[in-house]
Amino acid sequence: MRVRAESLKRFCERVFQKMGISEEDARITAAVLVAADLRGIDSHGVARLRRYVNGLRDGMIVACPQVRVMTETPVTALIDAGAGLGQPISRRAMQKAIQKAQALGAGFVTVRNSNHYGIAGYYAMMALEHDCIGISMTNASVLVVPTFGRDAMLGTNPISVAAPAGQEWPFVLDMATSTVPRGKLEVYDRLEKPLPLGWATDETGIPTTDTGRVLKNFRDKKKGSGGLLPLGGAGELLGGHKGYGLALMVEILCAILSGSAYADLVYPKTPDGKPLPSNVGHFFGAWRVDAFRPVEEFKAAMDDLQRRFKNAPRAEGQTRIYIHGEKEYEEAERRSREGIPLNPKVAADLRALGEEMGVEYAGHPSQHPRVRQGCCRGPR
Amino acid sequence: MRVRAESLKRFCERVFQKMGISEEDARITAAVLVAADLRGIDSHGVARLRRYVNGLRDGMIVACPQVRVMTETPVTALIDAGAGLGQPISRRAMQKAIQKAQALGAGFVTVRNSNHYGIAGYYAMMALEHDCIGISMTNASVLVVPTFGRDAMLGTNPISVAAPAGQEWPFVLDMATSTVPRGKLEVYDRLEKPLPLGWATDETGIPTTDTGRVLKNFRDKKKGSGGLLPLGGAGELLGGHKGYGLALMVEILCAILSGSAYADLVYPKTPDGKPLPSNVGHFFGAWRVDAFRPVEEFKAAMDDLQRRFKNAPRAEGQTRIYIHGEKEYEEAERRSREGIPLNPKVAADLRALGEEMGVEYAGHPSQHPRVRQGCCRGPR
Repeated sequence: MRVRAESLKRFCERVFQKMGISEEDARITAAVLVAADLRGIDSHGVARLRRYVNGLRDGMIVACPQVRVMTETPVTALIDAGAGLGQPISRRAMQKAIQKAQALGAGFVTVRNSNHYGIAGYYAMMALEHDCIGISMTNASVLVVPTFGRDAMLGTNPISVAAPAGQEWPFVLDMATSTVPRGKLEVYDRLEKPLPLGWATDETGIPTTDTGRVLKNFRDKKKGSGGLLPLGGAGELLGGHKGYGLALMVEILCAILSGSAYADLVYPKTPDGKPLPSNVGHFFGAWRVDAFRPVEEFKAAMDDLQRRFKNAPRAEGQTRIYIHGEKEYEEAERRSREGIPLNPKVAADLRALGEEMGVEYAGHPSQHPRVRQGCCRGPR
Repeated sequence: MRVRAESLKRFCERVFQKMGISEEDARITAAVLVAADLRGIDSHGVARLRRYVNGLRDGMIVACPQVRVMTETPVTALIDAGAGLGQPISRRAMQKAIQKAQALGAGFVTVRNSNHYGIAGYYAMMALEHDCIGISMTNASVLVVPTFGRDAMLGTNPISVAAPAGQEWPFVLDMATSTVPRGKLEVYDRLEKPLPLGWATDETGIPTTDTGRVLKNFRDKKKGSGGLLPLGGAGELLGGHKGYGLALMVEILCAILSGSAYADLVYPKTPDGKPLPSNVGHFFGAWRVDAFRPVEEFKAAMDDLQRRFKNAPRAEGQTRIYIHGEKEYEEAERRSREGIPLNPKVAADLRALGEEMGVEYAGHPSQHPRVRQGCCRGPR
């Protein structure tokens, strides 16, 4: 069943407001979630709404956080998010980075004491309409084993970089630094398919094809339980140490530079089992294109770069060479027109959540095939 | 045979000066080359001296370039390198980025119309002694195929990020965004070993284990000749599109933002076969740690981060978990003490080059086991 983005957004907004979130923060968080659904990144969209609600209920996420700017220079800042939702503080941190870039050429803001911030790409893409190149990274709860290690010690630590173009879509790289995210394993589990070697290890740290075993280890969450492999897979033969290095780089820029939890970011609990703030760290930045080169020249070169790849000869059996972000922009156009195809389980969960909270779930099929969402579209 | 770093450096300096390079530029370029040898990155050290000499002879590299700062703001700059050697301009560009970071918190300098700059890590590491985090990237001549593509259209486009620590070595990530560099294929070729699948494709764009075929295609340099695979290998199953995305990101930040050659950076020639400037682009940046967080706090957390990984349980059959840069720092300590072990072919070539140019090749065995080189060592 396809649901209009606008009604999903309104539903999320009202759920967040019921949880004590301010109108503006609820609006921002809902917009980030639905932007993920529009772009086809369903794992980071409304399917996660209940997790945020649970976090707010448990006290892991603070509804009305005390946000403090800890350090600020004309080009940099460090913000303490007060254990609030990751999305509103991340949007404001990225806005601050962009303002600094507009004033001086570049701006960088790190955030500590935050929570899950949704899709990394949302914030990097905020730079586009200001003719800036944007960067967004976050650390995340541990799932990934270091090269030659046995225990998960790093998150999927995504990197997103967005750069504007002219006639073509902007370039939007938005990638976990692990080979795959956990959600991919869950898909294989439902299909009862063995994992490709290079995705995950068993509890001895050896690569495995046993989907159920890896997911069981994640659920058990005990030490020495293996995990996802960094981009490049196990060992060094196919470059696994590079993916591990990129994940460490994200950990340093997001957590060490901000003073967040690092190396074993888990969801800590009090002795009586009450969750404590997770202390996630983020890193945001913007470079103003015309601090280096006239914007029109840059955009013309971006268009030409993309066209050269798109028009290049394909490998045998292949039909298309993609530029990063292209698939998601096309999906967002389609879903803005046709609605967001919700997984029936997710739809049922949203309905149940709505009933619990006294918020009507308006998940009726898409009625307005021409409604368009601005939040996740480029300047085309 | 092991040779002292100092004598290799002096030899390179004199060769460059014979080619018309200024004393200072010769000194910088020699230092960058020998830093690679000290760190164990032999492919980017003195073994490349002849290629630079040939570039200078052919006119691809200009000995006394006209360097121009094209754009400058308090935080950013774009420099035209005038087709000179990549090393001196890169060192100066990184110095400028560090000065900007010292003044305002962060600084970024792009360079266009440059040449091969040696190891990316050299410049990122320059930030360390100023308690800054450094970043260095370059595009490079085409060797890497995009995901689903048939032709090499990207360089191995390395990324280096260096961050200071306290008692531990600094973190120094210095990685090609391809699974492996071309040099690795040459090693397999000498050993007559088949390539692991995921390193390279044949001329149809299909992954191959045929080492000789891939190297022959490189030598033939015609269109549609396949190439190295991006980190993550072929297709999307193991994340090859991520390595391709990182390579594109490097291409955008180094070449599109600076106005350098992109997407098919080759070594162009005039109709009568004379090489033209290659127009390589670089990107340098520095973030001052205390623009975010007190340096001592940052370094203590860096030490703790590293120790957690080094002391973590190993995967079955493994004995050590590394932090990026550690192997190279250990190698540099060893080679500073014991000398640089030159491949006999490289030593013979240096000797021949010395004879051609009237520069004595002082490649005698290391006499001073306690001589230490400062240029590539961290603050430990």
